[in-house]
Amino acid sequence: MIVVLKPDITKKQFDYIINRVKKLGLKPHISKGTERTIIGLIGPEDVLRITPLEVFPGVEKVMPVLAPYKLVSREFQTKNTVVKLSQKLKIGDKKIAVIAGPCAIENYDILYEIAKKIKEAGATILRGGAFKPRTSPYSFQGLGEEGLKYLKQVGESLNMSTVTEVMDTRDVGLVSRYSDMLQIGARNMQNFNLLKEVGQTKKPILLKRGLSSTIKELLMSAEYILSSGNFNVILCERGIRTFEDATRNTLDISAVPIIKKLSHLPVIVDPSHASGKWELISPLSKAAVAVGCDGLLIEVHTKPEEAFSDGNQSLIPNRFKELIKELKPIAKATKREI
Amino acid sequence: MIVVLKPDITKKQFDYIINRVKKLGLKPHISKGTERTIIGLIGPEDVLRITPLEVFPGVEKVMPVLAPYKLVSREFQTKNTVVKLSQKLKIGDKKIAVIAGPCAIENYDILYEIAKKIKEAGATILRGGAFKPRTSPYSFQGLGEEGLKYLKQVGESLNMSTVTEVMDTRDVGLVSRYSDMLQIGARNMQNFNLLKEVGQTKKPILLKRGLSSTIKELLMSAEYILSSGNFNVILCERGIRTFEDATRNTLDISAVPIIKKLSHLPVIVDPSHASGKWELISPLSKAAVAVGCDGLLIEVHTKPEEAFSDGNQSLIPNRFKELIKELKPIAKATKREI
Amino acid sequence: MIVVLKPDITKKQFDYIINRVKKLGLKPHISKGTERTIIGLIGPEDVLRITPLEVFPGVEKVMPVLAPYKLVSREFQTKNTVVKLSQKLKIGDKKIAVIAGPCAIENYDILYEIAKKIKEAGATILRGGAFKPRTSPYSFQGLGEEGLKYLKQVGESLNMSTVTEVMDTRDVGLVSRYSDMLQIGARNMQNFNLLKEVGQTKKPILLKRGLSSTIKELLMSAEYILSSGNFNVILCERGIRTFEDATRNTLDISAVPIIKKLSHLPVIVDPSHASGKWELISPLSKAAVAVGCDGLLIEVHTKPEEAFSDGNQSLIPNRFKELIKELKPIAKATKREI
Amino acid sequence: MIVVLKPDITKKQFDYIINRVKKLGLKPHISKGTERTIIGLIGPEDVLRITPLEVFPGVEKVMPVLAPYKLVSREFQTKNTVVKLSQKLKIGDKKIAVIAGPCAIENYDILYEIAKKIKEAGATILRGGAFKPRTSPYSFQGLGEEGLKYLKQVGESLNMSTVTEVMDTRDVGLVSRYSDMLQIGARNMQNFNLLKEVGQTKKPILLKRGLSSTIKELLMSAEYILSSGNFNVILCERGIRTFEDATRNTLDISAVPIIKKLSHLPVIVDPSHASGKWELISPLSKAAVAVGCDGLLIEVHTKPEEAFSDGNQSLIPNRFKELIKELKPIAKATKREI
Repeated sequence: MIVVLKPDITKKQFDYIINRVKKLGLKPHISKGTERTIIGLIGPEDVLRITPLEVFPGVEKVMPVLAPYKLVSREFQTKNTVVKLSQKLKIGDKKIAVIAGPCAIENYDILYEIAKKIKEAGATILRGGAFKPRTSPYSFQGLGEEGLKYLKQVGESLNMSTVTEVMDTRDVGLVSRYSDMLQIGARNMQNFNLLKEVGQTKKPILLKRGLSSTIKELLMSAEYILSSGNFNVILCERGIRTFEDATRNTLDISAVPIIKKLSHLPVIVDPSHASGKWELISPLSKAAVAVGCDGLLIEVHTKPEEAFSDGNQSLIPNRFKELIKELKPIAKATKREI
Repeated sequence: MIVVLKPDITKKQFDYIINRVKKLGLKPHISKGTERTIIGLIGPEDVLRITPLEVFPGVEKVMPVLAPYKLVSREFQTKNTVVKLSQKLKIGDKKIAVIAGPCAIENYDILYEIAKKIKEAGATILRGGAFKPRTSPYSFQGLGEEGLKYLKQVGESLNMSTVTEVMDTRDVGLVSRYSDMLQIGARNMQNFNLLKEVGQTKKPILLKRGLSSTIKELLMSAEYILSSGNFNVILCERGIRTFEDATRNTLDISAVPIIKKLSHLPVIVDPSHASGKWELISPLSKAAVAVGCDGLLIEVHTKPEEAFSDGNQSLIPNRFKELIKELKPIAKATKREI
Repeated sequence: MIVVLKPDITKKQFDYIINRVKKLGLKPHISKGTERTIIGLIGPEDVLRITPLEVFPGVEKVMPVLAPYKLVSREFQTKNTVVKLSQKLKIGDKKIAVIAGPCAIENYDILYEIAKKIKEAGATILRGGAFKPRTSPYSFQGLGEEGLKYLKQVGESLNMSTVTEVMDTRDVGLVSRYSDMLQIGARNMQNFNLLKEVGQTKKPILLKRGLSSTIKELLMSAEYILSSGNFNVILCERGIRTFEDATRNTLDISAVPIIKKLSHLPVIVDPSHASGKWELISPLSKAAVAVGCDGLLIEVHTKPEEAFSDGNQSLIPNRFKELIKELKPIAKATKREI
Repeated sequence: MIVVLKPDITKKQFDYIINRVKKLGLKPHISKGTERTIIGLIGPEDVLRITPLEVFPGVEKVMPVLAPYKLVSREFQTKNTVVKLSQKLKIGDKKIAVIAGPCAIENYDILYEIAKKIKEAGATILRGGAFKPRTSPYSFQGLGEEGLKYLKQVGESLNMSTVTEVMDTRDVGLVSRYSDMLQIGARNMQNFNLLKEVGQTKKPILLKRGLSSTIKELLMSAEYILSSGNFNVILCERGIRTFEDATRNTLDISAVPIIKKLSHLPVIVDPSHASGKWELISPLSKAAVAVGCDGLLIEVHTKPEEAFSDGNQSLIPNRFKELIKELKPIAKATKREI
């Protein structure tokens, strides 16, 4: 922690600061420059975080030196985390995971039909929403437990792993009984009680980046889950909110290599929500594989024009199949498989 | 709803769209221009929202005509909503409400001391967090129910109304027993289950705008509460996330007159979170009153340098007192009182 | 300048850095913490800025201590700059300057009529564009020198000072002959050659903040003008680009007190461009005066519906007159005049 | 153009609007819905753009139907534009162009050394700045004409095409004599006079997207050049300004397929400026090729730690060589060459 002092700091203010930080168990290193004096504080960062040093008279600004997260960092664990969904299915190793399915679960038959086709195309994990976070209270809110049942039945009958969103702390137990992986949606990335709750399960957690969350905040939210005891966390870049309105959100493709550098957790990309346009799913998926992602999350629907939600950003199964084929040489070029 | 067709749309695609919208009970008005044909769709907008017309082959884009919210709109209710906190205390009428207090409740004595001083200065509602949404799992998370008890005791002994944040659907009952008003924090603005839950109480709800939520999304979140049966909603502008890093967030002062135009709900401003700097609280509060806000939410602490949270953005009681005095002529100039 | 080293830096890398900074004439202060070593560099910051220390193997990040601007800073000059436009007319003292007029100069008569009415209402400086920066090459681009002549004639006949935009280094001499003050538009805030060129005149310069420029960058652009020899600079906050689309831009009202703290230069506010909506000009002008601005820049047009440009964000003279009246008590409440 | 009327519009207001648009030569199509009446206006869009219909009493909002650009659009020209730099060298065809070199030209020897190595690695176009747009007036501003001479000499001796930035309308002739292609930097994307000036040359123009410019605005700026007579325009995505601070800017990778859909012009990607970090150049270049770009613009320096500018975001020649090798299979996978 670096404390930059104001040029007009008084002797009394200076002494007060030095005494205060010493009492907190910190060791101050003082460097007097021609225009500013700075104090380097050495000691437990946890102590520093709780003390608002900027409030002290005579202080101009305070600059942290260490990252605020620990368990999720590469320094804590240099080896890549590989999350196991089943005996054979892992996220974070050489093989890029393909998660696909409809935005919302509408009924058993449609879900089964979609699942069958995406499995043939190469997807291994089935997604589908039973609880839907919708901007409008008047939009379809999901089938709830009925949808979870369909997801489990279809997953079992086709031997696919499953993932679905949980939005409420009260539903974590329920959703855990039906789904292999729990998704925390972008709008809940900083729903800290929900993070703690899923942190107490042993389920793999798919944590989506908030629309306007920095990478650092995403890692801090993951830290909530890891510090609650659950290390099975997969991060997901799904587009951030910017001024550009040609796409629904702006896919922050740089987030993938940045996160891989800062953290040991796997990172996947969701081109459907990032763009909001089905025409962009194919080029953005290629970019995601080329940049080094560990997985893709793609919305697929047999009849996008009749989907209850997000039809605009869903691929039809044929295009999805073609896409997976086109991704193979790119994966190979980056020493991965798909 | 306006549907703009592609210039190269086929007769078959065109007929399909027309048939489809007619089946949905909508009446299409066709306008053929030199470069584009557009279809104006008239009928129940709810039907339109569920149908992803952009997916149809031949459609270039779809533009909504009506706002997606209803109950919160000025069209639904032209008269300003005035929310009653007690027999005497209202938000939304001539008198500008002053809500103040510490970020987090630390213990009874500090809370009492702060409350006493802000009451003397002119505040009528006491704020204080018992459940704190913190970016880091290692930061102080609040005293929980113990903090709620202190809030209620201090409020009653000083005859002040109270407000505190609720973060978890499971805590809505608990917090309702202790506090006069429930706050939904910025990070939970789109925690839709929480919105529905507080919508089922009769308590006044202070709904803070999300860091990267548009005004339209804020109104949609309020719509969740109103459509659940609770019309006692107060909106709060507290700064949005932008590229500017000289302040913690960017206070969107224009949001106040925009919301007053679109909606009948009261709007207050939180200059503490908007700026993250105590030096800005005074000028921003003046701007907020001048622009026409219905209330202010200000963090005050007797010893900001020892506060458990947000010390940097808290005023000391003397400065707070002076501020309220300086706001009086500005309120008067805009035909309000404070 | 603070250099934070990587935890795994080698002895050789460390020695290389120390030797290198010493050769540059800098004095390193080394602080070894438990997790990181940091080096505080003391010496001429100019040297440091040119040396990309982050490239050095073993360096994790580099954090500047000093602001990158000098002449514009409060530390360089503690007293407020007051810019003189004429013997009687100043910007930056107790009296808040009111600059008004049409977006574009259309012809002599319309300009004269508008100018006469705004003068009666209380404006002292006439604005009007002769060279217009338009997003589209097909929009009206301004009357050029003809417009400048009208501006000068109207200004002289009504005894008002004038301001107009200059967009091209080749036009600085021309525009200087006709106008009392030169405006650098938002899109040219980082047109560095233009900044240097106007820096070589003695004319007052109205420098508008770029749509996505930080306050620091605005001050750096002003530094270009001051360091070229011209200290007569007035800064203008006119809204920044954010995700919010209810307004054309987001007025960053906090910029006013922030700039007043960091710099001695006067700051004015342009509510017309900030909002893009005439209904917001009045509330935003009140907020601007309350927050402490030194002037207002307001678009006024007698027939907004026939204006060649920006009709949507122009006030009619009657509303403008009423606004100035309403601003008087707010100015008084903040110990200013208008 | 669609005009949405207010629900409380009067008969008089309605008639006024209808008469007015008819006088402008437009044909109104009226659709009366249950909650709103809308008017579809058919006729020359140019007329509509100049008339601020939103100002009319009774109008709620106005929504454009057509894109504001013409010459740059896919509708105007369906075939991809291929820009010729020399008999053999083209941008926009099957072969992906590799433009590389130092940020700033420092002297002949360094430039020659860098150019020789990047040519060996596969680059065909040499970049280097002689006029540098720097945020600070105290940073290195470029060698000016001397630098242009070095660029031309090195280009000729190694048989490479060249590109360099022009910042001032007065320098367009000078730079054109020395360089094969002219670059308009991000900060000058809306320097409309400069756009017109380069539009009057026949030189290929590399137009970089502004830090906070929408894709639509980038296309409008290109429209300035094309409408001045020069169709040899190459667009460049180089990162946009967002709230994320882990990278210098956020590479908007989606811009590539979006622009390819809307326009016939070639699009290249600059991963150096987009990220500001040399470690990201390699993954982002792979993503750019995978997503379908027509070229890459990469900063390379033999001694980044001694570069006068942007050392942090430059690759050393060996890494650059390796990168080009790694890009080959990805280019092949997307049916391109590099």
